[in-house]
Amino acid sequence: MSLLEQVNSPEDIRGFSVKQLETLCSEIRKYMIECCATNPGHLGASLGAIELAVALHYVYNTPTDKVVWDVGHQAYAHKIITGRREQFRTNRTYKGISGFPKMSESIFDTFGVGHSSTSVSAALGMAVASKLSGSNEKIVAVIGDGAMTGGMAFEGLNNAGAMKTDILVILNDNHISIDKGHGGLHDYLLKISTSETYNRIKNQVWDAIGSTSLRRWVQKVMFSTKMAVFRSGSLFESFGFRYFGAIDGNDIGQLTTTLASLRNIKGPKLLHVITKKGKGYRPAEEDQTAWHAPGTFDPVTGKRNIPADNTTSRYQDVFGETLLELARADSRIVAVTPAMASGCGMNIMMKEIPDRTFDVGIAEQHAVTFSAGMAAAGMLPFCNIYSTFMQRAYDSVIHDVALQKLKVVLCLDRAGLVGEDGATHHGVFDMASYRPIPNLIIASPLNELELRNLMYTATLPTVQGPIIIRYPRGNGEGIPWRGVNFMSIPVGKGQLLRDGSDIALLSIGPIGNLAAEAARMAAERGISVLHYDMRFLKPLDLDILREVCTKVSKILTVEDGTVAGGLHDAVASFTAAEYPGCTVVGLGVPDRFVEQGSIKELRKECGYDTEDIFNAIVKLF
Amino acid sequence: MSLLEQVNSPEDIRGFSVKQLETLCSEIRKYMIECCATNPGHLGASLGAIELAVALHYVYNTPTDKVVWDVGHQAYAHKIITGRREQFRTNRTYKGISGFPKMSESIFDTFGVGHSSTSVSAALGMAVASKLSGSNEKIVAVIGDGAMTGGMAFEGLNNAGAMKTDILVILNDNHISIDKGHGGLHDYLLKISTSETYNRIKNQVWDAIGSTSLRRWVQKVMFSTKMAVFRSGSLFESFGFRYFGAIDGNDIGQLTTTLASLRNIKGPKLLHVITKKGKGYRPAEEDQTAWHAPGTFDPVTGKRNIPADNTTSRYQDVFGETLLELARADSRIVAVTPAMASGCGMNIMMKEIPDRTFDVGIAEQHAVTFSAGMAAAGMLPFCNIYSTFMQRAYDSVIHDVALQKLKVVLCLDRAGLVGEDGATHHGVFDMASYRPIPNLIIASPLNELELRNLMYTATLPTVQGPIIIRYPRGNGEGIPWRGVNFMSIPVGKGQLLRDGSDIALLSIGPIGNLAAEAARMAAERGISVLHYDMRFLKPLDLDILREVCTKVSKILTVEDGTVAGGLHDAVASFTAAEYPGCTVVGLGVPDRFVEQGSIKELRKECGYDTEDIFNAIVKLF
Repeated sequence: MSLLEQVNSPEDIRGFSVKQLETLCSEIRKYMIECCATNPGHLGASLGAIELAVALHYVYNTPTDKVVWDVGHQAYAHKIITGRREQFRTNRTYKGISGFPKMSESIFDTFGVGHSSTSVSAALGMAVASKLSGSNEKIVAVIGDGAMTGGMAFEGLNNAGAMKTDILVILNDNHISIDKGHGGLHDYLLKISTSETYNRIKNQVWDAIGSTSLRRWVQKVMFSTKMAVFRSGSLFESFGFRYFGAIDGNDIGQLTTTLASLRNIKGPKLLHVITKKGKGYRPAEEDQTAWHAPGTFDPVTGKRNIPADNTTSRYQDVFGETLLELARADSRIVAVTPAMASGCGMNIMMKEIPDRTFDVGIAEQHAVTFSAGMAAAGMLPFCNIYSTFMQRAYDSVIHDVALQKLKVVLCLDRAGLVGEDGATHHGVFDMASYRPIPNLIIASPLNELELRNLMYTATLPTVQGPIIIRYPRGNGEGIPWRGVNFMSIPVGKGQLLRDGSDIALLSIGPIGNLAAEAARMAAERGISVLHYDMRFLKPLDLDILREVCTKVSKILTVEDGTVAGGLHDAVASFTAAEYPGCTVVGLGVPDRFVEQGSIKELRKECGYDTEDIFNAIVKLF
Repeated sequence: MSLLEQVNSPEDIRGFSVKQLETLCSEIRKYMIECCATNPGHLGASLGAIELAVALHYVYNTPTDKVVWDVGHQAYAHKIITGRREQFRTNRTYKGISGFPKMSESIFDTFGVGHSSTSVSAALGMAVASKLSGSNEKIVAVIGDGAMTGGMAFEGLNNAGAMKTDILVILNDNHISIDKGHGGLHDYLLKISTSETYNRIKNQVWDAIGSTSLRRWVQKVMFSTKMAVFRSGSLFESFGFRYFGAIDGNDIGQLTTTLASLRNIKGPKLLHVITKKGKGYRPAEEDQTAWHAPGTFDPVTGKRNIPADNTTSRYQDVFGETLLELARADSRIVAVTPAMASGCGMNIMMKEIPDRTFDVGIAEQHAVTFSAGMAAAGMLPFCNIYSTFMQRAYDSVIHDVALQKLKVVLCLDRAGLVGEDGATHHGVFDMASYRPIPNLIIASPLNELELRNLMYTATLPTVQGPIIIRYPRGNGEGIPWRGVNFMSIPVGKGQLLRDGSDIALLSIGPIGNLAAEAARMAAERGISVLHYDMRFLKPLDLDILREVCTKVSKILTVEDGTVAGGLHDAVASFTAAEYPGCTVVGLGVPDRFVEQGSIKELRKECGYDTEDIFNAIVKLF
């Protein structure tokens, strides 16, 4: 029986020797690679954080002591050794365990995560509660260098530093978030870990630890390095934290010794650990961006199974290539992404026109307002943010973009249900939350060609203010779009997909293709469906609504987002005031959070796949 | 003719001597005090930033060069010397000029502001645009020490530092935002300005400036102070900025000399200036919190005109006193505010139970997630944030509170139209944006007693998840509430205010009192109105809706927020699916941004004051 098979709870590892911990780590590594090879996940970050997870559960008395993992996709080892070894095979699958720590899943998951930069704030809350209740629990936040650039992390550090509450923040520094990091902080951290100072501190500190208490020595060493031209950790000390490190975060011996010492030091502390993304698996170490979430692969050869379907483009290909095409022709066009250049396809423009493409790091608010600043100065920014992360920039869109009617093209990738990333990542609130905001145009394309044409339309002078274009992750409908001449789309105008006379079907976005199929099925059953693709949630095409309401008295709306506040409510709001007598029923995401699974499974669960739409048509008829 | 009367544009001051600039500053100061004495505004911050505004327009070639004022309520002098001297008498009034810089108002207002911490991002956008177009415009952001704690400011600094674009960030440090600052940064800045290092730098730098170029000397001085135990500016240098200062920001001579030198230095620079809030007006210097926005006052005696109406409590009094009362009885209760302790009434609890009251500085996201962390550890947090600022924490509410169903009581002060603060500050999007979020309870009290009882209800075990309580700024209805026994309010249940049979009137929040009056007026005209106060937007009281729909076929909804997505749409969404045939017409904030003015004026403009509601009843009938 392997060591890993004996570990059903962190308690089981606390008697291990360092040698045994090392063995455990390599068994976890092997198991994690094996599982992720067939059931894909965020492998790279989790490989790098195995020693950290083991060391934390070894030193700290979890679950009484609490560890908050920022983002959480690096916490697979944490899941595996906290009673979820076998369940890990169901990672990110429907009804399986979540790819992120989740309070309802385990007592060891102290705080649900998924979006970045929340851990310091949450951990500080727990530390204050521990202090108030006198329970003396120890609280640790583990945050990556990428997540550290999110403004919220600084808000947390600033507050924690001043409150002087006991808290340990571990900066897990692998010099890369999903894409290569950008920002002053990134350069700063790199400087720490490569400077002579770093090496001197590292050696002195860890030589010292062997013989006597850490604290005295670290103080002494820190003092001596204050004379150095570059002073490690001054950034964090400015906030009131004591800085320790940097140490090798893939060395379990160093980690456990350091953590054991830090555990007893009072006040706000930051431990800087350097880890390697993909650690211990050569292909993942060598191409860290590709192996952030590699899909399935052969664990022996390291060959990734890249889908063979090259005939159907992804929306991301369309966005990326179209953006470049537009930018080539119009020097006003600039592009902004918060750390998602490869995910959204902006890397295509970045390669050819780097000086007009800006990856600003994980910083959604800044991304939007930085775009607004450029727009105020006459540029035409395309700002691409995943729908779920755009929630972070809600005020920036209202206050800096919409209120000033600045022409920023806000492209919301990963809109609608996103699948395996689950509850934290579905992009289902965007239509409802942006619809009440004045001056915004909100559009969603029916297919890849329409995405291309909406992007083109956004650049025309006819669009005088901000426009949101939302579209999903993944494959389009397989229709030709490359090289097709640009066509402008009239703003606020939908399009007829099927004429009919029994009931009306109104959809927005690519879900309209499923709706069209359902309408076809209904026609076979003798139900004549009048189907419009609304295209624009705002301005809503009232001509269509008036026509529909005069022709039929029953309307079914379909949208890949919350029914509340979205297309359904927009239509119902109009008909209830203008055409009472019209029944409006809505399909879409219901009033509950949706967990992980394939998009197909989740759409079924939410009740708006093709069959559901067909059934709703029949029922309404 | 005074100097001020000769200044109609910044160009008019560029020939002035330092002596003349000093005279101009004192004339501006006098004029500003005179105007604000009768027409209230944000006097304190603007008094402190007069020299800064004059110096910036003196040194920089505005409006070609661009200054972005963060928050902007410190920019009155900027408004006065950029062609709005006389218009300043209409500051913050209906159809007058805005209390904040606003792009549509003047070419000198380069970017609209109101919410804090946006200036660095916006200025960076302009600086990048300037670089791309080769126009060589200079870009300056002016940000206060309070606004600097907002995470977005750090996102901006981090990105600007790495991009190495020419930009000057002026940190206007008066050691106080609205309430006294809290946070590691606050302590850090205080340390800079009080340390010996600060004084040494200051003297050396400014002696040096007299004789030769600033740049060489500053470098030399900075180098020598690198040996000091405390190194000024290391925080900003960590982000890639060059740090200069701190200097006296109320010394126009020092300011103009320094800015003239900095204007020609490339790359990201931060100038730290120390100013005094209320500068030059003794009462305002002595009580900076009270004089942040003092209302009207006697400019000679400095006596503030505090409203004599002590019979009617403000919602803020109710919140503050009730919170303390609840917290006294329940040790789980903690309170969190992002820099609005006195504004929201939390200072009452802070005084008696300081260890359970947390002013986290301007940091809305952190405030919410810090609260969530405490809730996860068993505390019961009341987190009070103005509705408009809560837009900043939209994702935190979704991702950290609602998704995890953590019991945080989110109190949204300043909900609805807020009056003189205008378009940036109206709290009108909260109901629409939070309605689609699962697990949330959303309530709004009819009056001060109901606010008290909703707060009490929120503490009961019957409320098992997060609850939002939104209420407006200012006076309640004048009904007794102090010492009244707590009564629990059934969650999701509205209350009948008037029985009737012709049409139904559904309202939420204190606007229901105007609606009740309109219903009374309608009754006099023989129209029988069935009026319910819904109390809860979510869960919506479907029993009431079913009853209403069986009794009448016409419904008028009234809400102090956007009609789109709010109560109207919630009701229409239900009736369109369940009771077609029912007409639902909505009054509330229409689909446009509303400017400043008295609440009464703005409500009239939006069409939902008592008379408007009455007219709508008559029309619908």
